[in-house]
Amino acid sequence: MQDQAKLYLEDLAPGDRFVSGEHALDAEQIVTFAGQFDPQVFHLDDTLARDTFFQGLAASGWHTAALSMKLLVSSLPLAGGLIGAGGEIAWPQPTRPGDVLHVESEVLEIKPSRSKPDRGIVRIQTLTLNQHGEVLQRLSPTLVVMRRPVPDEA
Amino acid sequence: MQDQAKLYLEDLAPGDRFVSGEHALDAEQIVTFAGQFDPQVFHLDDTLARDTFFQGLAASGWHTAALSMKLLVSSLPLAGGLIGAGGEIAWPQPTRPGDVLHVESEVLEIKPSRSKPDRGIVRIQTLTLNQHGEVLQRLSPTLVVMRRPVPDEA
Repeated sequence: MQDQAKLYLEDLAPGDRFVSGEHALDAEQIVTFAGQFDPQVFHLDDTLARDTFFQGLAASGWHTAALSMKLLVSSLPLAGGLIGAGGEIAWPQPTRPGDVLHVESEVLEIKPSRSKPDRGIVRIQTLTLNQHGEVLQRLSPTLVVMRRPVPDEA
Repeated sequence: MQDQAKLYLEDLAPGDRFVSGEHALDAEQIVTFAGQFDPQVFHLDDTLARDTFFQGLAASGWHTAALSMKLLVSSLPLAGGLIGAGGEIAWPQPTRPGDVLHVESEVLEIKPSRSKPDRGIVRIQTLTLNQHGEVLQRLSPTLVVMRRPVPDEA
């Protein structure tokens, strides 16, 4: 957390954009995650998944969310870390085996905290896209972001 | 998905409640998940986490979300499975090692689909609580829920 390249509240402005590296997803990762956290047939077995809503193996939305977080952590280097209070999430289309994910984030709004002068609330939008540019997840979280500490003058 | 105890759209009404079993969380699970999906110091190392916003080891919000999904899958037996389009998520307080999680879900609203007569959209609220009754996550997803199939009369 002492990395000098990390960003404080003062370093952010609406419109700032951050693009992550990539994560290649395969069926094995999808099935492993689902077995632990979302054991439903359309996340576990490609053959059985064909007769479901998804018409084939699809990743759990929470798997897409977790991978998006991994990509966000490596692409938005906030001082103090990425601390989310919540937000809106949507999965416009399923994440599939063979998808190569990346996230593109944009700063939407910055509000200094009134009660706590050392921080602010930043709303961002983070899109998760595959290699075809298809949006797999839309997330609009609010983050707690610290101000740059004032040097001690005592 | 052929389980006869599964619920169709006609079986749900606003106010219906579903309570899950429990999941006991420990530091090892928190660190393992974070290493894969949310590698930040406050999710990885209890000692280093003391100097952060969380003042001690805390689970990734996405870990809380994934565990909540596991508990939801086992407690809300929808025919066709739990298919979420998205929703709002909030983490009012951190999930900690030693927390024993369960989810309590309530049906808020049911809308038959206009374009697709075989299904409807159901909005629920799912709270994730620990053994002290503290709310760790508030999720309001919209789900696609199938109607009971009409027997073929041909």
